[in-house]
Amino acid sequence: MDFSIRAANVEDCKDIARMIRELAEYEKKSDQIKVTQRDLEQDGFSKNPFFHGIVAEVSDQHRTKDGHTKIGYALYFYSYSSWAGRAIYMEDLYVMPEFRGKGIGKALMSKVAQLGLAAGCNQLDFTVLDWNKSSLDFYLSQGCFDITATVGYHCMRCKGEALEHLAQP
Amino acid sequence: MDFSIRAANVEDCKDIARMIRELAEYEKKSDQIKVTQRDLEQDGFSKNPFFHGIVAEVSDQHRTKDGHTKIGYALYFYSYSSWAGRAIYMEDLYVMPEFRGKGIGKALMSKVAQLGLAAGCNQLDFTVLDWNKSSLDFYLSQGCFDITATVGYHCMRCKGEALEHLAQP
Repeated sequence: MDFSIRAANVEDCKDIARMIRELAEYEKKSDQIKVTQRDLEQDGFSKNPFFHGIVAEVSDQHRTKDGHTKIGYALYFYSYSSWAGRAIYMEDLYVMPEFRGKGIGKALMSKVAQLGLAAGCNQLDFTVLDWNKSSLDFYLSQGCFDITATVGYHCMRCKGEALEHLAQP
Repeated sequence: MDFSIRAANVEDCKDIARMIRELAEYEKKSDQIKVTQRDLEQDGFSKNPFFHGIVAEVSDQHRTKDGHTKIGYALYFYSYSSWAGRAIYMEDLYVMPEFRGKGIGKALMSKVAQLGLAAGCNQLDFTVLDWNKSSLDFYLSQGCFDITATVGYHCMRCKGEALEHLAQP
């Protein structure tokens, strides 16, 4: 099946928002989605964007029963490691279930890697849920390594009232 | 002891590079430091910087025996969560050992939280090494939570030849 990967633009935010919801449902976290289509438009496509995106598209003849031709996406942003220097962080990687197993996820991730290398990045970082064995196996098969399991890094977060409280001088 | 927290500028890169090495020694990883003072100058203080920094300074009367008055730093960059939206990522938080226990680390982290809130961020993310119990306890005491332990997120990385290979179309 032919597909194409291209940079996301502001008109893609409706489909990206839809696929973010689908991914969250797959990860059993849809109650935690606060981001709207409008947030994506503002945060990703104004001056000094907080993220960038790429989308995977199929031709009309392969559109879903709901009429979708944008069937996968990845979000990424540039980051930094004080050890390794420039880095790229892949926030999401998603392909609609009926389009999996066709190399589309690999192509999206490959594009993020290309963009990172082109910007002088030395590493690509992302997270995976420990129960998501098929994704973990895919990433390991691509030569990625699990730095939580091997080095002991834990992801930490501060939000809501704790973040407001922390910010008090 | 009086100290001040301010935005880092390019003249701070020498001290930040020194403290990055000190932090890596503390984390038993100094062999993995690829970043030089010059990298920091280029990557943090040119157009479209990959990171931002803040430094903690003490007055001359409290300088170290080696003459240092810049005794702590944090690096951060803006990031994005497709669930929660705008986020800020704290890459490093470090205070020289002889200046610990004086609220300097808390003040640095508080400043990162302030900067994040001012930019509309909904969460502050960072990592901690699982054996670094004193840091983990500090973060938990500030209302942060360990999303590796509670939700199961693992940090993944691709670099070197694997990254080059992944980027092949």
